[in-house]
Amino acid sequence: MSTSAPVPAPDILRRRLERAAAAAGDAGFDALIVTPGSDLRYLIGAAGGSFERLTCLVLPVSGEPTLVVPKLELPGYSPVLVDELGVAAATWVDGENPAQLAAGLLKSPKRVAISDFTPALHVFGLRDVLSGVEQQLAGPVIRELRMRKDATEVDLLRRVGAAIDRVHARMGEFLRAGRTENEVAADIAAAILQEGHAVAEFVIVGSGPNGASPHHGASDRVIEQGDVVVIDIGGPLAEGYNSDSTRTYAIGEPRDADVVATYAVLQEAQQAAVDAVRPGVTAQDIDRAARAVIASAGFGEYFIHRTGHGIGLDVHEEPYIVEGNDLVLEPGMAFSIEPGIYQPGRWGARIEDIVVVTEDGVESLNNQPHSLVVL
Amino acid sequence: MSTSAPVPAPDILRRRLERAAAAAGDAGFDALIVTPGSDLRYLIGAAGGSFERLTCLVLPVSGEPTLVVPKLELPGYSPVLVDELGVAAATWVDGENPAQLAAGLLKSPKRVAISDFTPALHVFGLRDVLSGVEQQLAGPVIRELRMRKDATEVDLLRRVGAAIDRVHARMGEFLRAGRTENEVAADIAAAILQEGHAVAEFVIVGSGPNGASPHHGASDRVIEQGDVVVIDIGGPLAEGYNSDSTRTYAIGEPRDADVVATYAVLQEAQQAAVDAVRPGVTAQDIDRAARAVIASAGFGEYFIHRTGHGIGLDVHEEPYIVEGNDLVLEPGMAFSIEPGIYQPGRWGARIEDIVVVTEDGVESLNNQPHSLVVL
Repeated sequence: MSTSAPVPAPDILRRRLERAAAAAGDAGFDALIVTPGSDLRYLIGAAGGSFERLTCLVLPVSGEPTLVVPKLELPGYSPVLVDELGVAAATWVDGENPAQLAAGLLKSPKRVAISDFTPALHVFGLRDVLSGVEQQLAGPVIRELRMRKDATEVDLLRRVGAAIDRVHARMGEFLRAGRTENEVAADIAAAILQEGHAVAEFVIVGSGPNGASPHHGASDRVIEQGDVVVIDIGGPLAEGYNSDSTRTYAIGEPRDADVVATYAVLQEAQQAAVDAVRPGVTAQDIDRAARAVIASAGFGEYFIHRTGHGIGLDVHEEPYIVEGNDLVLEPGMAFSIEPGIYQPGRWGARIEDIVVVTEDGVESLNNQPHSLVVL
Repeated sequence: MSTSAPVPAPDILRRRLERAAAAAGDAGFDALIVTPGSDLRYLIGAAGGSFERLTCLVLPVSGEPTLVVPKLELPGYSPVLVDELGVAAATWVDGENPAQLAAGLLKSPKRVAISDFTPALHVFGLRDVLSGVEQQLAGPVIRELRMRKDATEVDLLRRVGAAIDRVHARMGEFLRAGRTENEVAADIAAAILQEGHAVAEFVIVGSGPNGASPHHGASDRVIEQGDVVVIDIGGPLAEGYNSDSTRTYAIGEPRDADVVATYAVLQEAQQAAVDAVRPGVTAQDIDRAARAVIASAGFGEYFIHRTGHGIGLDVHEEPYIVEGNDLVLEPGMAFSIEPGIYQPGRWGARIEDIVVVTEDGVESLNNQPHSLVVL
């Protein structure tokens, strides 16, 4: 369902549209085609629903932007479109071919960029009416804008970071022996909303052996005394910007004798990665900073994912903090730093903060203690 | 987050995999490539999360099916895969190219089908490693299976239909003058969960002029005495099968003098379409049955969408009940019948039931009264 959410000021959106068109031109494209999702929300402040009917912003490098939209979904967009942004609307009704409508807005295009999360349904629909036109991903163009947050965006990330910190600060209310992971997760989800999020987007409660599976959700497992529990939670504000923070808890003294020493390594690794963040270093440098600490302590094989991911209107976006990404960090880039150590069948631990690159270093947007919290 | 949801019996899933592979062969494909979403859930009973990392089932027409999956997401799939379904897992870690891994599972393919909601990110990733291989949508193949529900699936749709009926039956608890649409929607969402749904997927509360926008969600508008209110709600059971039902309510006597007579036309149109459903007629016949009643009463231009959509693991799926769709209906097909009449700026009305085609006619899975409910 569409709800009326806060929208950035029209001048901000107009500038984003202009910059996106210019960046598309620089990358050799004739137009961007952007379907509902975070990219569209970033550009026009609204991104309705995404079902099987094609909605797309056709943003030519030169010429007027137009939103192709089912007639019945236009009301969800119209408040911001024509008057304030100069975006025309081209509506269609069931039975018409919207891909044809979109293609008709372009003059002899040779190369178009399609937003990364456009469903194959529409990718192939556009391909079939744009015969001979090269299709590539729009992500590399749009991410150049989106991964450099402006002051307003950083402020929203700061606000949602504080909100998720407040949920972690209340963990003693929810997490104790004798409750199932699902029960704890339901309470945490309610707290995520109470503390100011619009949606409780994800709640991971990985207790005991489940903590060793980084993408475990929550289950009927009953939490026991001595368990180590990974709590990874977050969601968006009404404005769309997301939180994502992980802390690891122990229910009394940890059952496994190796927990305390291993956790100390993890904490050192997370701090080393945060300390490495500043303008001019690369994304993979940050990954290496965390990984070096863990590997030199002999746990390299138990750190089975990248160190982090960018965050903003999407929970996962550029820049990815991963070996092989030589992107040079700049002020305004925001991403998670979340190394983990996973002991299969026994327990896992992860520490995750969102950080933003500043002019001369780093600001952490999560500020709960990093230590293993014994409840 | 992934949670442990009920999974169809292994023999059912194995048969679906076999039938999908056979149907792909009949359609001239060498393989299906299915990414997380309802298609994957239909085939293997699980569909984890879908983020930027590629997960896909590679289902060759001849040969073993394999799930390409990030190593850290494998635990969400493993309970059903190898042992019970004979699906191998090929894992990858950050830094590797999963499209290459998927392509390597195919022997000199010429033509592959990609699931409809695969993001462009992965469509183009696969295209670039499958050079010269024709890519088409898998939807036409998989929908041949999915749109013919078996008895177990119909039973789940019947169960979730009864659950949403119970929510409509309680509408007097939630909907009254002086409350905002958002307040009413929040209560309805809670009731959707209380009555047995796993998720309150959508809640449309379209009061007064907002009811004239078919895809309006909910807003801060305060509901007034005399308003007509469209309530369109639904969501999935834990098993994934969805409800979707609309009723139109009046808060006391309707303010607009044309409501009662117009609503009578709508009710007649919805019934005419239901009565037209039986094996052997086409999807567009059903659309025409509703549209003819509305058009002949002079309201044709105010019925601005198709008459319905299939439903199952997706809220919107095949068969679409729309002009131009000459699909012949068969027993086990389930879809909505939801004509609407929308008076811009004033009010709207819609009546929606899910129906299933039986051996000799139709069964309605929603059974709340169709009349305008005056609260």
